[in-house]
Amino acid sequence: MDFRIGFGYDVHQLQQGLPFWLGGVQIEHTKGSLGHSDGDALIHAICDAMLGAANLGDIGVHFPDTDPSLKGIDSKILLRKTMDIIAQIGYTIGNIDSTICLQRPKVKDYIPKMQAELAKALDVEPQQISIKATTTEKLGFVGREEGVTAYAVVLLRKN
Amino acid sequence: MDFRIGFGYDVHQLQQGLPFWLGGVQIEHTKGSLGHSDGDALIHAICDAMLGAANLGDIGVHFPDTDPSLKGIDSKILLRKTMDIIAQIGYTIGNIDSTICLQRPKVKDYIPKMQAELAKALDVEPQQISIKATTTEKLGFVGREEGVTAYAVVLLRKN
Amino acid sequence: MDFRIGFGYDVHQLQQGLPFWLGGVQIEHTKGSLGHSDGDALIHAICDAMLGAANLGDIGVHFPDTDPSLKGIDSKILLRKTMDIIAQIGYTIGNIDSTICLQRPKVKDYIPKMQAELAKALDVEPQQISIKATTTEKLGFVGREEGVTAYAVVLLRKN
Repeated sequence: MDFRIGFGYDVHQLQQGLPFWLGGVQIEHTKGSLGHSDGDALIHAICDAMLGAANLGDIGVHFPDTDPSLKGIDSKILLRKTMDIIAQIGYTIGNIDSTICLQRPKVKDYIPKMQAELAKALDVEPQQISIKATTTEKLGFVGREEGVTAYAVVLLRKN
Repeated sequence: MDFRIGFGYDVHQLQQGLPFWLGGVQIEHTKGSLGHSDGDALIHAICDAMLGAANLGDIGVHFPDTDPSLKGIDSKILLRKTMDIIAQIGYTIGNIDSTICLQRPKVKDYIPKMQAELAKALDVEPQQISIKATTTEKLGFVGREEGVTAYAVVLLRKN
Repeated sequence: MDFRIGFGYDVHQLQQGLPFWLGGVQIEHTKGSLGHSDGDALIHAICDAMLGAANLGDIGVHFPDTDPSLKGIDSKILLRKTMDIIAQIGYTIGNIDSTICLQRPKVKDYIPKMQAELAKALDVEPQQISIKATTTEKLGFVGREEGVTAYAVVLLRKN
Protein backbone atom coordinates (compact mmCIF):
# COMPACT_ATOMS: atom_id res chain seq x y z
CA MET A 1 0.00 0.00 0.00
CA ASP A 2 1.28 3.41 -0.96
CA PHE A 3 0.12 6.62 0.72
CA ARG A 4 0.38 10.22 -0.46
CA ILE A 5 -0.63 13.44 1.28
CA GLY A 6 -1.94 16.66 -0.20
CA PHE A 7 -2.75 20.16 1.00
CA GLY A 8 -5.08 22.79 -0.45
CA TYR A 9 -5.82 26.43 0.35
CA ASP A 10 -8.34 28.67 -1.35
CA VAL A 11 -9.58 32.25 -0.97
CA HIS A 12 -12.61 34.02 -2.39
CA GLN A 13 -13.85 37.57 -1.95
CA LEU A 14 -17.26 38.04 -0.36
CA GLN A 15 -19.48 40.63 -2.00
CA GLN A 16 -22.99 41.91 -1.30
CA GLY A 17 -25.82 40.28 -3.19
CA LEU A 18 -23.99 37.27 -4.62
CA PRO A 19 -25.13 33.70 -3.92
CA PHE A 20 -22.88 32.04 -1.32
CA TRP A 21 -21.85 28.48 -2.16
CA LEU A 22 -19.69 26.61 0.32
CA GLY A 23 -19.15 22.86 0.61
CA GLY A 24 -21.66 22.27 -2.17
CA VAL A 25 -24.43 23.95 -0.18
CA GLN A 26 -25.99 27.41 -0.56
CA ILE A 27 -25.52 29.48 2.60
CA GLU A 28 -28.12 32.09 3.61
CA HIS A 29 -26.28 35.39 3.86
CA THR A 30 -26.31 38.97 2.55
CA LYS A 31 -22.93 38.38 0.90
CA GLY A 32 -21.68 35.70 -1.47
CA SER A 33 -18.50 34.41 -3.00
CA LEU A 34 -16.96 36.03 -6.10
CA GLY A 35 -15.45 33.63 -8.61
CA HIS A 36 -15.36 32.44 -12.19
CA SER A 37 -17.15 29.25 -11.08
CA ASP A 38 -19.63 29.35 -8.18
CA GLY A 39 -16.74 30.42 -5.92
CA ASP A 40 -16.93 27.47 -3.51
CA ALA A 41 -13.71 27.91 -1.49
CA LEU A 42 -14.09 24.63 0.43
CA ILE A 43 -14.52 22.46 -2.66
CA HIS A 44 -11.65 24.25 -4.41
CA ALA A 45 -9.31 23.63 -1.45
CA ILE A 46 -10.28 19.94 -1.48
CA CYS A 47 -9.72 19.65 -5.27
CA ASP A 48 -6.30 21.24 -4.87
CA ALA A 49 -5.37 18.87 -2.03
CA MET A 50 -6.39 15.86 -4.13
CA LEU A 51 -4.50 17.06 -7.21
CA GLY A 52 -1.46 17.94 -5.09
CA ALA A 53 -1.39 14.54 -3.42
CA ALA A 54 -1.49 12.88 -6.86
CA ASN A 55 1.04 15.39 -8.23
CA LEU A 56 -1.25 16.41 -11.06
CA GLY A 57 -0.92 20.19 -10.91
CA ASP A 58 -3.56 22.43 -9.39
CA ILE A 59 -7.15 23.48 -9.92
CA GLY A 60 -6.07 26.41 -12.10
CA VAL A 61 -4.34 24.01 -14.49
CA HIS A 62 -7.32 21.65 -14.82
CA PHE A 63 -10.13 24.21 -14.61
CA PRO A 64 -8.73 27.57 -15.78
CA ASP A 65 -10.72 30.69 -14.93
CA THR A 66 -10.31 31.74 -18.56
CA ASP A 67 -12.46 28.81 -19.77
CA PRO A 68 -15.91 30.21 -20.66
CA SER A 69 -17.49 26.74 -20.33
CA LEU A 70 -16.70 26.85 -16.58
CA LYS A 71 -18.40 30.21 -15.94
CA GLY A 72 -20.72 29.89 -12.95
CA ILE A 73 -20.22 26.11 -12.87
CA ASP A 74 -21.31 24.10 -9.82
CA SER A 75 -18.04 23.22 -8.07
CA LYS A 76 -19.40 19.77 -7.22
CA ILE A 77 -18.91 18.99 -10.92
CA LEU A 78 -15.25 20.05 -10.61
CA LEU A 79 -14.92 17.84 -7.52
CA ARG A 80 -16.39 14.86 -9.39
CA LYS A 81 -14.00 15.47 -12.30
CA THR A 82 -11.05 15.73 -9.90
CA MET A 83 -12.03 12.39 -8.38
CA ASP A 84 -12.18 10.85 -11.87
CA ILE A 85 -8.72 12.23 -12.69
CA ILE A 86 -7.04 10.74 -9.62
CA ALA A 87 -9.00 7.46 -9.82
CA GLN A 88 -7.78 6.99 -13.37
CA ILE A 89 -4.22 6.64 -12.10
CA GLY A 90 -5.21 4.28 -9.31
CA TYR A 91 -5.71 6.50 -6.26
CA THR A 92 -8.51 6.20 -3.75
CA ILE A 93 -9.33 8.57 -0.91
CA GLY A 94 -8.26 7.56 2.59
CA ASN A 95 -9.65 10.60 4.35
CA ILE A 96 -10.07 14.35 3.90
CA ASP A 97 -9.96 16.93 6.69
CA SER A 98 -10.85 20.55 6.03
CA THR A 99 -11.32 23.89 7.77
CA ILE A 100 -13.54 26.78 6.69
CA CYS A 101 -12.43 30.23 7.93
CA LEU A 102 -15.38 32.61 7.92
CA GLN A 103 -16.32 35.37 10.33
CA ARG A 104 -20.08 35.31 9.63
CA PRO A 105 -22.50 33.58 9.41
CA LYS A 106 -22.08 30.51 11.60
CA VAL A 107 -21.97 27.51 9.25
CA LYS A 108 -22.01 24.75 11.89
CA ASP A 109 -25.57 23.70 11.06
CA TYR A 110 -24.75 23.34 7.36
CA ILE A 111 -21.87 20.92 7.91
CA PRO A 112 -23.79 17.59 7.88
CA LYS A 113 -25.39 18.63 4.57
CA MET A 114 -21.97 19.65 3.17
CA GLN A 115 -20.51 16.27 4.16
CA ALA A 116 -23.36 14.45 2.45
CA GLU A 117 -23.00 16.54 -0.74
CA LEU A 118 -19.23 16.10 -0.95
CA ALA A 119 -19.43 12.37 -0.20
CA LYS A 120 -21.97 12.00 -3.00
CA ALA A 121 -19.83 13.94 -5.48
CA LEU A 122 -16.74 11.90 -4.55
CA ASP A 123 -18.60 8.59 -4.17
CA VAL A 124 -17.05 7.97 -0.73
CA GLU A 125 -18.51 7.61 2.76
CA PRO A 126 -19.40 10.84 4.64
CA GLN A 127 -17.19 9.43 7.41
CA GLN A 128 -14.17 9.97 5.11
CA ILE A 129 -14.78 13.74 4.84
CA SER A 130 -14.32 15.98 7.85
CA ILE A 131 -15.37 19.65 7.67
CA LYS A 132 -14.57 22.06 10.48
CA ALA A 133 -15.28 25.78 10.81
CA THR A 134 -13.63 28.66 12.63
CA THR A 135 -13.70 32.45 12.66
CA THR A 136 -10.48 34.44 12.69
CA GLU A 137 -11.60 36.41 15.76
CA LYS A 138 -12.34 39.52 13.66
CA LEU A 139 -8.71 39.70 12.50
CA GLY A 140 -7.47 40.01 8.91
CA PHE A 141 -9.54 39.96 5.74
CA VAL A 142 -11.62 37.03 6.94
CA GLY A 143 -12.29 38.85 10.20
CA ARG A 144 -13.33 42.01 8.31
CA GLU A 145 -15.78 39.85 6.32
CA GLU A 146 -14.03 40.67 3.04
CA GLY A 147 -13.40 37.03 2.21
CA VAL A 148 -13.71 33.34 3.00
CA THR A 149 -10.81 30.89 3.05
CA ALA A 150 -10.57 27.12 3.31
CA TYR A 151 -7.81 24.63 4.04
CA ALA A 152 -7.89 20.93 3.21
CA VAL A 153 -5.57 17.97 3.71
CA VAL A 154 -6.07 14.60 2.09
CA LEU A 155 -4.55 11.15 2.44
CA LEU A 156 -4.64 9.12 -0.77
CA ARG A 157 -3.99 5.41 -1.15
CA LYS A 158 -2.70 3.42 -4.08
CA ASN A 159 -2.95 -0.34 -4.06
CA MET B 1 -3.12 -0.61 9.98
CA ASP B 2 -5.33 2.33 9.06
CA PHE B 3 -4.02 5.90 8.95
CA ARG B 4 -5.94 9.18 8.97
CA ILE B 5 -4.68 12.74 8.70
CA GLY B 6 -6.02 15.90 10.26
CA PHE B 7 -5.37 19.64 10.04
CA GLY B 8 -6.08 22.42 12.53
CA TYR B 9 -5.84 26.20 12.42
CA ASP B 10 -6.59 28.61 15.25
CA VAL B 11 -6.46 32.37 15.80
CA HIS B 12 -6.62 34.45 18.95
CA GLN B 13 -6.43 38.19 19.48
CA LEU B 14 -3.56 39.52 21.59
CA GLN B 15 -4.48 42.21 24.08
CA GLN B 16 -2.52 44.22 26.64
CA GLY B 17 -2.42 42.89 30.16
CA LEU B 18 -3.85 39.41 29.58
CA PRO B 19 -1.94 36.26 30.54
CA PHE B 20 -0.42 34.61 27.46
CA TRP B 21 -0.84 30.82 27.32
CA LEU B 22 0.66 28.97 24.38
CA GLY B 23 1.46 25.27 24.11
CA GLY B 24 0.40 24.78 27.72
CA VAL B 25 3.04 27.20 28.96
CA GLN B 26 2.71 30.79 30.17
CA ILE B 27 4.73 33.18 28.00
CA GLU B 28 6.26 36.33 29.50
CA HIS B 29 4.87 39.24 27.47
CA THR B 30 2.99 42.53 27.83
CA LYS B 31 0.10 41.09 25.81
CA GLY B 32 -1.90 37.91 26.14
CA SER B 33 -4.45 35.84 24.30
CA LEU B 34 -8.17 36.68 24.37
CA GLY B 35 -10.51 33.71 24.52
CA HIS B 36 -13.35 32.01 26.37
CA SER B 37 -10.87 29.41 27.64
CA ASP B 38 -7.23 30.37 28.33
CA GLY B 39 -6.91 31.21 24.60
CA ASP B 40 -4.11 28.73 23.85
CA ALA B 41 -4.00 28.85 20.02
CA LEU B 42 -1.47 26.01 19.68
CA ILE B 43 -3.44 23.54 21.80
CA HIS B 44 -6.68 24.49 20.03
CA ALA B 45 -5.13 23.88 16.60
CA ILE B 46 -3.89 20.47 17.79
CA CYS B 47 -7.31 19.53 19.23
CA ASP B 48 -8.93 20.51 15.92
CA ALA B 49 -6.44 18.44 13.92
CA MET B 50 -7.09 15.41 16.14
CA LEU B 51 -10.88 15.77 15.94
CA GLY B 52 -10.71 16.37 12.19
CA ALA B 53 -8.56 13.29 11.58
CA ALA B 54 -11.08 11.20 13.54
CA ASN B 55 -14.03 12.96 11.82
CA LEU B 56 -15.56 13.98 15.11
CA GLY B 57 -16.43 17.61 14.41
CA ASP B 58 -14.35 20.50 15.72
CA ILE B 59 -13.33 22.11 18.97
CA GLY B 60 -16.36 24.44 18.86
CA VAL B 61 -18.69 21.43 18.79
CA HIS B 62 -17.05 19.65 21.73
CA PHE B 63 -16.10 22.68 23.81
CA PRO B 64 -18.50 25.54 22.89
CA ASP B 65 -17.51 29.07 23.89
CA THR B 66 -21.03 29.48 25.25
CA ASP B 67 -20.39 26.87 27.97
CA PRO B 68 -19.84 28.74 31.27
CA SER B 69 -18.05 25.71 32.77
CA LEU B 70 -15.25 26.21 30.22
CA LYS B 71 -14.64 29.88 31.04
CA GLY B 72 -10.90 30.44 31.59
CA ILE B 73 -10.25 26.67 31.48
CA ASP B 74 -6.69 25.37 31.08
CA SER B 75 -6.56 24.16 27.46
CA LYS B 76 -4.43 21.18 28.53
CA ILE B 77 -7.66 19.81 30.02
CA LEU B 78 -9.36 20.19 26.63
CA LEU B 79 -6.40 18.43 25.00
CA ARG B 80 -6.64 15.53 27.46
CA LYS B 81 -10.40 15.26 26.81
CA THR B 82 -9.79 15.31 23.04
CA MET B 83 -7.30 12.47 23.43
CA ASP B 84 -9.87 10.49 25.44
CA ILE B 85 -12.52 11.08 22.74
CA ILE B 86 -10.36 9.77 19.90
CA ALA B 87 -8.89 6.92 21.99
CA GLN B 88 -12.42 5.69 22.75
CA ILE B 89 -12.93 4.90 19.07
CA GLY B 90 -9.58 3.18 18.75
CA TYR B 91 -7.22 5.87 17.45
CA THR B 92 -3.67 6.46 18.64
CA ILE B 93 -1.37 9.32 17.71
CA GLY B 94 1.33 8.66 15.13
CA ASN B 95 2.81 12.13 15.18
CA ILE B 96 1.83 15.77 15.42
CA ASP B 97 3.59 18.66 13.71
CA SER B 98 2.67 22.25 14.47
CA THR B 99 3.65 25.84 13.70
CA ILE B 100 3.16 28.91 15.88
CA CYS B 101 2.93 32.23 14.00
CA LEU B 102 3.82 35.08 16.32
CA GLN B 103 5.71 38.29 15.68
CA ARG B 104 6.89 38.82 19.27
CA PRO B 105 8.23 37.59 21.64
CA LYS B 106 10.57 34.83 20.45
CA VAL B 107 9.17 31.55 21.81
CA LYS B 108 12.03 29.26 20.77
CA ASP B 109 13.25 28.80 24.33
CA TYR B 110 9.78 27.74 25.53
CA ILE B 111 9.41 24.94 22.99
CA PRO B 112 11.01 22.06 24.95
CA LYS B 113 8.71 22.89 27.90
CA MET B 114 5.67 23.04 25.56
CA GLN B 115 6.57 19.63 24.11
CA ALA B 116 6.85 18.15 27.59
CA GLU B 117 3.50 19.64 28.69
CA LEU B 118 1.63 18.49 25.59
CA ALA B 119 3.18 15.01 25.72
CA LYS B 120 2.07 14.72 29.36
CA ALA B 121 -1.48 15.85 28.56
CA LEU B 122 -1.71 13.43 25.63
CA ASP B 123 0.22 10.61 27.33
CA VAL B 124 2.56 10.21 24.34
CA GLU B 125 6.31 10.62 23.88
CA PRO B 126 7.62 14.21 23.41
CA GLN B 127 9.26 12.81 20.25
CA GLN B 128 5.74 12.46 18.75
CA ILE B 129 4.99 16.20 19.08
CA SER B 130 6.85 18.73 16.98
CA ILE B 131 6.40 22.46 17.63
CA LYS B 132 7.91 25.06 15.32
CA ALA B 133 7.70 28.85 15.42
CA THR B 134 7.87 31.59 12.83
CA THR B 135 7.10 35.29 12.53
CA THR B 136 5.17 36.64 9.56
CA GLU B 137 7.90 39.19 8.80
CA LYS B 138 5.77 42.06 10.21
CA LEU B 139 3.03 41.39 7.64
CA GLY B 140 -0.69 40.95 8.34
CA PHE B 141 -2.42 40.84 11.71
CA VAL B 142 0.23 38.54 13.17
CA GLY B 143 2.95 40.91 11.95
CA ARG B 144 1.13 43.90 13.49
CA GLU B 145 1.06 41.97 16.82
CA GLU B 146 -2.75 41.96 16.86
CA GLY B 147 -2.97 38.19 17.06
CA VAL B 148 -1.36 34.78 17.28
CA THR B 149 -2.14 31.85 14.98
CA ALA B 150 -1.22 28.19 14.99
CA TYR B 151 -1.36 25.36 12.47
CA ALA B 152 -1.23 21.65 13.29
CA VAL B 153 -1.24 18.42 11.32
CA VAL B 154 -1.67 15.00 12.88
CA LEU B 155 -1.33 11.43 11.69
CA LEU B 156 -3.59 9.01 13.56
CA ARG B 157 -3.42 5.21 13.53
CA LYS B 158 -6.09 2.62 14.05
CA ASN B 159 -5.16 -1.01 14.55
CA MET C 1 6.97 0.82 7.75
CA ASP C 2 6.59 3.96 9.85
CA PHE C 3 5.11 7.17 8.47
CA ARG C 4 5.34 10.72 9.80
CA ILE C 5 3.72 13.90 8.54
CA GLY C 6 4.99 17.45 8.62
CA PHE C 7 3.70 20.92 7.82
CA GLY C 8 5.55 24.11 6.94
CA TYR C 9 4.54 27.74 6.43
CA ASP C 10 6.77 30.63 5.45
CA VAL C 11 6.37 34.33 4.73
CA HIS C 12 8.68 36.85 3.09
CA GLN C 13 8.22 40.51 2.32
CA LEU C 14 8.39 41.58 -1.31
CA GLN C 15 10.38 44.73 -2.03
CA GLN C 16 11.18 46.68 -5.17
CA GLY C 17 14.44 45.87 -6.88
CA LEU C 18 15.36 42.68 -5.04
CA PRO C 19 15.96 39.40 -6.89
CA PHE C 20 12.99 37.08 -6.50
CA TRP C 21 13.89 33.45 -5.72
CA LEU C 22 11.07 30.95 -5.39
CA GLY C 23 11.28 27.17 -5.61
CA GLY C 24 14.95 27.39 -6.44
CA VAL C 25 14.25 29.44 -9.56
CA GLN C 26 14.66 33.16 -10.21
CA ILE C 27 11.32 34.81 -11.09
CA GLU C 28 11.20 37.80 -13.44
CA HIS C 29 9.48 40.59 -11.49
CA THR C 30 9.96 44.18 -10.34
CA LYS C 31 9.91 43.03 -6.72
CA GLY C 32 11.84 40.36 -4.88
CA SER C 33 11.91 38.55 -1.58
CA LEU C 34 13.55 40.08 1.52
CA GLY C 35 15.44 37.64 3.73
CA HIS C 36 18.73 36.80 5.42
CA SER C 37 19.20 34.00 2.89
CA ASP C 38 17.86 34.35 -0.68
CA GLY C 39 14.33 34.56 0.82
CA ASP C 40 12.91 31.52 -0.98
CA ALA C 41 9.56 31.06 0.82
CA LEU C 42 8.70 27.79 -0.92
CA ILE C 43 11.98 26.05 -0.07
CA HIS C 44 11.80 27.33 3.52
CA ALA C 45 8.26 25.94 3.96
CA ILE C 46 9.44 22.57 2.61
CA CYS C 47 12.49 22.52 4.93
CA ASP C 48 10.21 23.29 7.89
CA ALA C 49 7.77 20.52 6.92
CA MET C 50 10.63 18.01 6.65
CA LEU C 51 12.18 19.04 9.98
CA GLY C 52 8.75 19.06 11.66
CA ALA C 53 7.91 15.57 10.39
CA ALA C 54 11.22 14.29 11.77
CA ASN C 55 10.75 16.31 15.00
CA LEU C 56 14.07 18.07 14.60
CA GLY C 57 13.08 21.64 15.35
CA ASP C 58 12.60 24.26 12.65
CA ILE C 59 14.55 26.10 10.01
CA GLY C 60 15.36 28.92 12.45
CA VAL C 61 17.08 26.43 14.77
CA HIS C 62 19.19 24.81 12.04
CA PHE C 63 19.85 27.89 9.91
CA PRO C 64 19.58 30.96 12.16
CA ASP C 65 19.20 34.36 10.50
CA THR C 66 21.93 35.61 12.80
CA ASP C 67 24.53 33.35 11.15
CA PRO C 68 26.67 35.55 8.86
CA SER C 69 27.78 32.49 6.84
CA LEU C 70 24.16 32.07 5.65
CA LYS C 71 23.79 35.65 4.38
CA GLY C 72 22.34 35.56 0.86
CA ILE C 73 22.79 31.78 0.68
CA ASP C 74 21.03 29.79 -2.07
CA SER C 75 18.14 28.06 -0.27
CA LYS C 76 18.71 24.92 -2.36
CA ILE C 77 21.82 24.40 -0.20
CA LEU C 78 19.63 24.61 2.93
CA LEU C 79 17.21 22.11 1.36
CA ARG C 80 20.07 19.69 0.60
CA LYS C 81 21.34 20.04 4.20
CA THR C 82 17.84 19.43 5.54
CA MET C 83 17.61 16.26 3.46
CA ASP C 84 20.97 15.10 4.85
CA ILE C 85 19.78 15.78 8.42
CA ILE C 86 16.63 13.68 8.11
CA ALA C 87 18.33 10.94 6.06
CA GLN C 88 20.91 10.53 8.82
CA ILE C 89 18.19 9.31 11.18
CA GLY C 90 16.71 6.97 8.60
CA TYR C 91 13.91 8.95 6.97
CA THR C 92 13.12 9.04 3.26
CA ILE C 93 10.61 11.27 1.49
CA GLY C 94 7.28 9.73 0.51
CA ASN C 95 5.85 12.83 -1.11
CA ILE C 96 5.74 16.60 -0.72
CA ASP C 97 2.81 18.83 -1.65
CA SER C 98 3.11 22.60 -1.55
CA THR C 99 1.22 25.79 -2.34
CA ILE C 100 2.65 29.18 -3.28
CA CYS C 101 0.41 32.19 -2.46
CA LEU C 102 1.37 35.13 -4.64
CA GLN C 103 -0.78 37.80 -6.26
CA ARG C 104 1.62 38.62 -9.10
CA PRO C 105 3.28 37.50 -11.31
CA LYS C 106 1.76 34.21 -12.47
CA VAL C 107 4.30 31.49 -11.66
CA LYS C 108 2.56 28.58 -13.40
CA ASP C 109 5.13 28.41 -16.18
CA TYR C 110 8.02 28.23 -13.69
CA ILE C 111 6.63 25.19 -11.85
CA PRO C 112 8.19 22.38 -13.95
CA LYS C 113 11.60 24.05 -13.51
CA MET C 114 11.00 24.42 -9.75
CA GLN C 115 10.09 20.73 -9.48
CA ALA C 116 13.25 19.74 -11.33
CA GLU C 117 15.45 21.98 -9.13
CA LEU C 118 13.92 20.76 -5.87
CA ALA C 119 14.06 17.10 -6.96
CA LYS C 120 17.75 17.55 -7.78
CA ALA C 121 18.50 19.21 -4.41
CA LEU C 122 16.63 16.46 -2.53
CA ASP C 123 17.80 13.61 -4.80
CA VAL C 124 14.23 12.35 -5.29
CA GLU C 125 11.96 11.99 -8.33
CA PRO C 126 10.16 15.16 -9.55
CA GLN C 127 7.01 13.05 -9.25
CA GLN C 128 7.46 13.14 -5.45
CA ILE C 129 7.27 16.96 -5.30
CA SER C 130 4.05 18.76 -6.10
CA ILE C 131 4.01 22.56 -6.37
CA LYS C 132 0.75 24.46 -6.74
CA ALA C 133 0.11 28.21 -6.96
CA THR C 134 -2.78 30.49 -6.07
CA THR C 135 -3.46 34.17 -5.60
CA THR C 136 -5.38 35.42 -2.57
CA GLU C 137 -7.88 37.28 -4.77
CA LYS C 138 -6.30 40.67 -3.92
CA LEU C 139 -7.05 40.15 -0.20
CA GLY C 140 -4.60 40.52 2.69
CA PHE C 141 -0.87 41.22 2.51
CA VAL C 142 -0.38 38.71 -0.30
CA GLY C 143 -3.22 40.32 -2.24
CA ARG C 144 -1.70 43.78 -1.71
CA GLU C 145 1.59 42.39 -3.12
CA GLU C 146 3.43 43.11 0.13
CA GLY C 147 4.53 39.51 0.56
CA VAL C 148 4.69 35.93 -0.64
CA THR C 149 3.73 32.90 1.46
CA ALA C 150 4.10 29.17 0.99
CA TYR C 151 2.64 26.08 2.62
CA ALA C 152 4.08 22.58 2.44
CA VAL C 153 3.11 19.15 3.74
CA VAL C 154 5.39 16.14 3.65
CA LEU C 155 4.99 12.43 4.27
CA LEU C 156 8.18 10.77 5.50
CA ARG C 157 8.90 7.04 5.71
CA LYS C 158 11.18 5.10 7.99
CA ASN C 159 11.96 1.48 7.22
